Amino acid sequence: MTIDKAASGVLPEPPEATVSASQRERLLTAAVDLFYRHGVGVGANALCKSAGISKKSMYQLFDSKDALLVAALERRVLADAAFLLPPPDFGPGPRARLLHVFRQLEKFARSPEYMGCAFLAPQVELKDPAHPASLVAARVKRQHLEGFFRTEAERGKATDPDFLTRQLAILYDGASTRAGIGADDLQGLAVTTAETLIEAAGITD
Amino acid sequence: MTIDKAASGVLPEPPEATVSASQRERLLTAAVDLFYRHGVGVGANALCKSAGISKKSMYQLFDSKDALLVAALERRVLADAAFLLPPPDFGPGPRARLLHVFRQLEKFARSPEYMGCAFLAPQVELKDPAHPASLVAARVKRQHLEGFFRTEAERGKATDPDFLTRQLAILYDGASTRAGIGADDLQGLAVTTAETLIEAAGITD
Repeated sequence: MTIDKAASGVLPEPPEATVSASQRERLLTAAVDLFYRHGVGVGANALCKSAGISKKSMYQLFDSKDALLVAALERRVLADAAFLLPPPDFGPGPRARLLHVFRQLEKFARSPEYMGCAFLAPQVELKDPAHPASLVAARVKRQHLEGFFRTEAERGKATDPDFLTRQLAILYDGASTRAGIGADDLQGLAVTTAETLIEAAGITD
Repeated sequence: MTIDKAASGVLPEPPEATVSASQRERLLTAAVDLFYRHGVGVGANALCKSAGISKKSMYQLFDSKDALLVAALERRVLADAAFLLPPPDFGPGPRARLLHVFRQLEKFARSPEYMGCAFLAPQVELKDPAHPASLVAARVKRQHLEGFFRTEAERGKATDPDFLTRQLAILYDGASTRAGIGADDLQGLAVTTAETLIEAAGITD
């Protein structure tokens, strides 16, 4: 972008702005990692130290720690969705597309770094559905995961698409949480359980 | 107890000890409530204020806030187990006994005060399976809930009792967590989903 502007005769951005953009990036990267590993209670000091920036810079970049938490959740959405959801050109029908999510979840759970759903934990920790981060986390789950379940349940002509959506959301949240706390490694469990529920809902393909 | 001792000629306990016992009770009651409503991060000040005791008394009663958290979890076990599990003389077979838990969970979720499983949330919040409170919470779930699921699955001659136990544990944790964060009211959902899994496991009665 800077090169293009320079080439077109526009002055390059002043060094200060460039530093801020890279600081913002470092802070967001640190925030995604630390909030996930340690929870929403991570302090501003730890965030700044990990990002290698000053507290003053942090508050120039984000109005509050809550605003940084919201931005960190939004930053994480695309990576998680790309891993969990099948690509648009994924061949098979609704049943296989739904099962793909739970196959990926079992893979997620194999990683020693896996600590459960990054959007569920903040809601459990904050205990306040009206908190900006709870609102964003709940919206992300509704749009990306429950929305996907519902679309496929409808395409697969489930007896009751809303009901199957609720069931798969509970399965996803229960499985991811138990993997996150180390109570279950999910291997051989998430996909098979999803299969049972999908079949009971009348989806055959 | 004091009266018995007095009647048998033993001196009654000094007033200081009596105060301590009542202080312990007040502190534990406050801790059960505050840790559940606000999470493991509740401060010593809030706990002491709610219990109406001094910080010095708190640390005379419990070595640390973690020790108080552990005691609060242990205090809660019997009440939750009595509500969720069927009494020993509960008539019907394993299928009905298993479903009883999910029927009670749906009732739990109807209360505006319900914030999910009191033993799962601390583990999500602490993010440390080796923390004393995580160890207690995990043990409580294994002994009281998963132990119950396994016993009934075996009594009902499930195809694979361990597998059904894992499935029902995930259903319980997913359902209770989603109810706790306000994502689902569970009505008509938890029992029916448990039914599907129990039937798929080959338990008919």
